Amino acid sequence: MNTFGDTFTFTSFGESHSAAIGGVLDGVPAGLHISLDMIRDALDRRAGRHQTSNIKHQTSACGVSQRALRETDEVEWLSGVLDGVTLGTPIAFLIRNRDARPEDYEAFKHSFRQAHADSTYEAKYGIRDWRGGGRASARETAARVVAGSIAAQLLAKQGIQIKAQLIQVGDETRPEHFDELINRYRAEGDSIGGIIACEVTGLPAGLGEPIFDKLQAHLAYAIMSINACKGFDYGSGFDGVTLPGSIANQHSGGMLGGITDGTPLRFRCVFKPTPSTPKAGVKGRHDACVAVRAVPVVEAMTALVLANFAGIL
Amino acid sequence: MNTFGDTFTFTSFGESHSAAIGGVLDGVPAGLHISLDMIRDALDRRAGRHQTSNIKHQTSACGVSQRALRETDEVEWLSGVLDGVTLGTPIAFLIRNRDARPEDYEAFKHSFRQAHADSTYEAKYGIRDWRGGGRASARETAARVVAGSIAAQLLAKQGIQIKAQLIQVGDETRPEHFDELINRYRAEGDSIGGIIACEVTGLPAGLGEPIFDKLQAHLAYAIMSINACKGFDYGSGFDGVTLPGSIANQHSGGMLGGITDGTPLRFRCVFKPTPSTPKAGVKGRHDACVAVRAVPVVEAMTALVLANFAGIL
Amino acid sequence: MNTFGDTFTFTSFGESHSAAIGGVLDGVPAGLHISLDMIRDALDRRAGRHQTSNIKHQTSACGVSQRALRETDEVEWLSGVLDGVTLGTPIAFLIRNRDARPEDYEAFKHSFRQAHADSTYEAKYGIRDWRGGGRASARETAARVVAGSIAAQLLAKQGIQIKAQLIQVGDETRPEHFDELINRYRAEGDSIGGIIACEVTGLPAGLGEPIFDKLQAHLAYAIMSINACKGFDYGSGFDGVTLPGSIANQHSGGMLGGITDGTPLRFRCVFKPTPSTPKAGVKGRHDACVAVRAVPVVEAMTALVLANFAGIL
Amino acid sequence: MNTFGDTFTFTSFGESHSAAIGGVLDGVPAGLHISLDMIRDALDRRAGRHQTSNIKHQTSACGVSQRALRETDEVEWLSGVLDGVTLGTPIAFLIRNRDARPEDYEAFKHSFRQAHADSTYEAKYGIRDWRGGGRASARETAARVVAGSIAAQLLAKQGIQIKAQLIQVGDETRPEHFDELINRYRAEGDSIGGIIACEVTGLPAGLGEPIFDKLQAHLAYAIMSINACKGFDYGSGFDGVTLPGSIANQHSGGMLGGITDGTPLRFRCVFKPTPSTPKAGVKGRHDACVAVRAVPVVEAMTALVLANFAGIL
Repeated sequence: MNTFGDTFTFTSFGESHSAAIGGVLDGVPAGLHISLDMIRDALDRRAGRHQTSNIKHQTSACGVSQRALRETDEVEWLSGVLDGVTLGTPIAFLIRNRDARPEDYEAFKHSFRQAHADSTYEAKYGIRDWRGGGRASARETAARVVAGSIAAQLLAKQGIQIKAQLIQVGDETRPEHFDELINRYRAEGDSIGGIIACEVTGLPAGLGEPIFDKLQAHLAYAIMSINACKGFDYGSGFDGVTLPGSIANQHSGGMLGGITDGTPLRFRCVFKPTPSTPKAGVKGRHDACVAVRAVPVVEAMTALVLANFAGIL
Repeated sequence: MNTFGDTFTFTSFGESHSAAIGGVLDGVPAGLHISLDMIRDALDRRAGRHQTSNIKHQTSACGVSQRALRETDEVEWLSGVLDGVTLGTPIAFLIRNRDARPEDYEAFKHSFRQAHADSTYEAKYGIRDWRGGGRASARETAARVVAGSIAAQLLAKQGIQIKAQLIQVGDETRPEHFDELINRYRAEGDSIGGIIACEVTGLPAGLGEPIFDKLQAHLAYAIMSINACKGFDYGSGFDGVTLPGSIANQHSGGMLGGITDGTPLRFRCVFKPTPSTPKAGVKGRHDACVAVRAVPVVEAMTALVLANFAGIL
Repeated sequence: MNTFGDTFTFTSFGESHSAAIGGVLDGVPAGLHISLDMIRDALDRRAGRHQTSNIKHQTSACGVSQRALRETDEVEWLSGVLDGVTLGTPIAFLIRNRDARPEDYEAFKHSFRQAHADSTYEAKYGIRDWRGGGRASARETAARVVAGSIAAQLLAKQGIQIKAQLIQVGDETRPEHFDELINRYRAEGDSIGGIIACEVTGLPAGLGEPIFDKLQAHLAYAIMSINACKGFDYGSGFDGVTLPGSIANQHSGGMLGGITDGTPLRFRCVFKPTPSTPKAGVKGRHDACVAVRAVPVVEAMTALVLANFAGIL
Repeated sequence: MNTFGDTFTFTSFGESHSAAIGGVLDGVPAGLHISLDMIRDALDRRAGRHQTSNIKHQTSACGVSQRALRETDEVEWLSGVLDGVTLGTPIAFLIRNRDARPEDYEAFKHSFRQAHADSTYEAKYGIRDWRGGGRASARETAARVVAGSIAAQLLAKQGIQIKAQLIQVGDETRPEHFDELINRYRAEGDSIGGIIACEVTGLPAGLGEPIFDKLQAHLAYAIMSINACKGFDYGSGFDGVTLPGSIANQHSGGMLGGITDGTPLRFRCVFKPTPSTPKAGVKGRHDACVAVRAVPVVEAMTALVLANFAGIL
């Protein structure tokens, strides 16, 4: 289904070629002043309109596709907000798909066969179902970013800060070399994966619930629901397998027994290289490293999980 | 909360020192012949009464605690089963905690401070709440194994087989050397982590749902809810970060766009070394590698997820 | 929360004075041809643009407020439908609040104190929260009607027909006298309640689940969530209390043990008179009998419940 | 399914002829002292071991079946409670079915065809499924009563009191004449329906949520899930249909817009006469008015709903 959360829920809608994508965010308390700039910033990062590292450079260097750059992602607010302040009612918003024209749609029909989830969507819904092409598209994550930014602003009022960043591209772990490596793969018509680390500070101890509402379980669920994500770990994680207990357990990752311990929460996730590359026969400019644009999506899903748990508390 | 699943639900109860642990499994169709032997086998593996590898050897070699070996785990069936056949009604079962005596309880009071999740449970529930000591205990996973075995038997009737195994202990990847390594850590009063790989064969293409019910998201949620689990990945996973798209995408792990593609489903998970070691001041025989006993728990949670999705289909 | 259902879900949004009201309907299979005429018809009936009985007469006779008549209720489709056919993805739609201008908003501020749920909304959300005025408004039911009509069309493909009608106004049970009675109350600046009966034909036996998913329990939940509804019964209902078992049990209402028995499903619901009357100090034309316009809302909620159960089956 | 509630959940299990019935109550905070006497009292009332009215008289006068009187309903606590105090963990309990012997089982096979929900259960589960006979039995409500009593005790600590009583049997509304009327129907081998009124005092204003979590909607759902219940109304209810708005709206029933208004909550529900009578061919002593024993079940379900909402707040 397309609804996330229990007490703080986000319902997502829209195909890449429908009139709009968007969502409904339910459970936001009344009185929150929403910063549109923060939402804009997160959307820009998702669209690849920001740099990947601290070094100033052209966006085009990130290997971002033309389509992404054309997306202007103007958010239209339908309900739940008045004069920039939340009403406590469901917040509905949409982002128009500006280039959703019939001729695009034809192109979509043909590109359908090359998209990531085509074969599985066909198996599930049958050949006449367009659910795959439009819904499996990463465009859907823009709605997550809008909703997640509101959740993050709510958390920020409680002193909780979420910060994700790209820490590895291929075997490169030096941020100042990421663009160079990504551009190299792009030039070769190929793509490469990346690892994102996320840190949350300011969390109170005690968030999370035994035994099936462990915080790390819900985070893993949320992060693994992002397109192209192939793994999640926290604290000592997979690398900790070689450490003896006397050392590994110094890296809790901020959660013990499924509950926050008051120290910074730290997790990682890995994104596979996109399969839609010139090398694989897909023409046009492509995202050579989708992990770049996944950073604000990881932050968004983290915010949605934490707001949901904060609501439970 | 302590209920897992939507249409095929498992509700778990019991503390390590209460009268019993157990569970209620709801959504099992009528007419399934339950093999008690298969449940017994899974419980034995969870209790460390089996070997870790294919090589025949003494259970005691696995570094399993005395308490685990004393657990006889006799399942008492309360409802939902008649003459070994399911009725379609909720299946309730319990396993008595045979050594739940007052004097044990006193010991529990004192050992409370050393258990894994003590500090977080105290932060959450307050010092007078015993939820931590009893509920955070890995004993709870025995109920998961019973429920998961029934789910697995249901799946087996549809030709779906789940098989997990320990593939790494510390930096050792040769199964025939696992016991030796584990015994070494045990002798040193220390502990070590492990990685479990799980493979599911016989799955039809089409299981899983966009965008928040992706199969890998639910699997990650389920697996990360197991005690001591610190990470989950599938297909190319974390290791795939160094591979170019042209190679990495040959390893789907059986799911694309959150939906099974008809090939074997493959995921991994990592378990941290237990912090309750002689080196950390906890006396008595200890589990030097909890990943050993987690293998049937990983299978159980996988079965619960898949039975839930099969129900949705 | 504002999401209804489990496997066939409807998420509603919008205040009476926000930019739009609308909803997201999730779980509709691909390939359904949507009749916009049927949706239009249901919306017209909700807006009071139809007659109350079989006798042809002017809409204005029904005591419908001017505001209702001004609502044109044009549905804008955002996603999930292409060329009038469902895609299997979430169907998002909106209806603009055409007269949502600042000056209206001022009026809204003042009328806030007279609305039905004002005191309780204030108790819950605090005085600065506009949730009440806008969200408690019956305008929200237009979104239910759109979603319910799609559900009804889905059910109709399976031969299931839902038909609600007003059977009592005050103590009057002759439909041809309803308008006269309603007009009398309106002329007096007062209002009157009504009873709606709903019949569903074509349901297969076997819909519903023990013990908490009994079909009548879900129907009661859905119907009682409609504004101004004060009661629900089915089969022999409240009136059956005076009948001996040998007679009363001939009126099952189509459900036994919470499960359909293959006979027509029959239930009733009662709507209180609106408290917003000239007599109570609220100026302007008013709905003298809100039950009139509730008929298509009752049908809509019934359809949503049944589509959800059909999905479970 | 067999789980009720979201944040305060009750999972029920057990057939009338399985080893036990029982349940798991999740979400009860730690530190509640449980009064076993109050649970005993509620179970006794459900079993017909109390009088129907304030006038002292023999239980046997109520037309209660022999089987009900034989039920001793001893509750065995499995987890979640220590020395009579809740631990914050799931509270699991069971009540043995003392006469669940093979020979009884044979009888059950034959009586199966006469039980209330037989035809619908057969339609749903097929002839070999025993779900109907055992699970549809009113015996299941004993587990609801245990769970509901704990919820009621939790609410009582916050000053919330729930009191249900039989207010009508057939057309008789004078309590002191109920037994006489019931006995008359019993003597004739027939049965009669009854209406129960429930009042809740001490509720704070503000409980309930728009638009689908209106308190009356959840109450209706819970009450309509009780065996033999055919209707629910609150405040002015069905009788209010004849009253003009200027009068009817003085009877809110304690809820406006789905949210408590701080006045006593008042609702009614109606129970049909049992179809299992000598007149219908079912031999042996029978419950001539099942509404008598439904009183504590109505209180129990009300308590479960309110505890769930209190948890949401």
